[in-house]
Amino acid sequence: MIGLGSKGPGGITLDARKALGDATVVIGYKLYLEQAGPFLRPDARRESSGMTRETKRAEDAIEMALKGEKVAVVSGGDPGIYAMSGVVFEVAAAKKIPLGEGKGELSIKVIPGTPALTAASSILGAPITHDFCAISLSDRLTDWELIKKRLSLASRGDFVIVVYNPRSRGRDWQLGEAMAILLEKLDPDTPVGLASRCGRKGEKGRIVTLGTLKIEEVDMQTLVIIGNSTTFVWSGHMITPRGYVKKYGSGERVPDEGEGFENEDGEES
Amino acid sequence: MIGLGSKGPGGITLDARKALGDATVVIGYKLYLEQAGPFLRPDARRESSGMTRETKRAEDAIEMALKGEKVAVVSGGDPGIYAMSGVVFEVAAAKKIPLGEGKGELSIKVIPGTPALTAASSILGAPITHDFCAISLSDRLTDWELIKKRLSLASRGDFVIVVYNPRSRGRDWQLGEAMAILLEKLDPDTPVGLASRCGRKGEKGRIVTLGTLKIEEVDMQTLVIIGNSTTFVWSGHMITPRGYVKKYGSGERVPDEGEGFENEDGEES
Repeated sequence: MIGLGSKGPGGITLDARKALGDATVVIGYKLYLEQAGPFLRPDARRESSGMTRETKRAEDAIEMALKGEKVAVVSGGDPGIYAMSGVVFEVAAAKKIPLGEGKGELSIKVIPGTPALTAASSILGAPITHDFCAISLSDRLTDWELIKKRLSLASRGDFVIVVYNPRSRGRDWQLGEAMAILLEKLDPDTPVGLASRCGRKGEKGRIVTLGTLKIEEVDMQTLVIIGNSTTFVWSGHMITPRGYVKKYGSGERVPDEGEGFENEDGEES
Repeated sequence: MIGLGSKGPGGITLDARKALGDATVVIGYKLYLEQAGPFLRPDARRESSGMTRETKRAEDAIEMALKGEKVAVVSGGDPGIYAMSGVVFEVAAAKKIPLGEGKGELSIKVIPGTPALTAASSILGAPITHDFCAISLSDRLTDWELIKKRLSLASRGDFVIVVYNPRSRGRDWQLGEAMAILLEKLDPDTPVGLASRCGRKGEKGRIVTLGTLKIEEVDMQTLVIIGNSTTFVWSGHMITPRGYVKKYGSGERVPDEGEGFENEDGEES
């Protein structure tokens, strides 16, 4: 399972690049196969899929791996976040295939990539910073009532909220309903970042507010990041502060506040 | 702002590697400077910090950048998630420094890295897959009442919950309280993944349950991932299914369920 990251060819990790170069078969949605192309062996077999079902892609991958192929299943972003990793493991479990390095076992290695939320964040400023929720508005496999409940609970927890799949063809009413739910609890002035086509040509970031966001501004390739109660906008950038700086002065030295968030072992908090 | 990723030297992206190679000054916690070392110019100045305050690090970085240095602030993981990006932007805003490419403006580029949650996920199986919350148990700068509220709300939304900073020296009661809060709502059989020292020597994944988790098993370098109501364990791996496979049979072909989650434009849902 290889994540290609979310910032184009330069966003791929060294490990991912190596794993792609080792693969004898590469499976994935055609867009990701194109992205992976430059890193593949010339003799690697490419199994591209268009609108094919994810379970079939997973089944094919598993079948080929069990036959001894070095199969790379490529996803954009990270394989474990709204991508193929869960499907492959789910199918393996459904077929009761043992996982591991032994004979007759299926060996699945997951190579992380930068998820879309990190790419979106990077073009908007620093909108996430701390506790956040990721919620997908796609109700194809998830009940809309559960999605609404999650949005409501997230807004009550003062989380930064990252909205995946805000809109797509044939599915364009959900975002409006989602905004209405958030506005029951959140200030209409809450900054909202729209990050589109991250890592592709035409990559764009735009900052609006919860109250002024227009559904038409959001398309299929947009990630929406809703700030928490401390999020503000400075000089065209969306910033959720960690809370280090309690006072804001003009040009004066910023006083140190609180303790460092890294302890001796380098743990960030 | 450069994220080094969470999987050691191989986890760095091509963009990050290039940016490190361009820097004239590199600032960061000493552990991250060591990780960045191989990618730096021999004449790059290294500004290592131990227990120094993050605001000072940010101030120094900003000051040097305004003087024309190519400053790289390095963080582990992704700069925008529990790392330095928020601090740097926060300090710039506090000092009212305009951001941009023009004269007198501060240019901040954020280069994403794979956040710890993707590394943790990759060694446990596919524990996240869909909607999730990230919550830090560090109450240094965040009120414990708010953290408790977030845990409670997250458990009621059937999110997968990623717990950052579950424990550290001098801060070891929070995890127990957090587990108690989650157990008010979640099944004690809920799988919980413990991912330690991701990307470092001794990297380790362990799967327990909410009811059997022992605080002593969790240390300063562990990320804790609590499954949602559908999460299960198969063959030593923690799996949160997307919901494609509704029936589980022994060896029979898995029926295709639902629609693909990628539309023509490659959007994942």
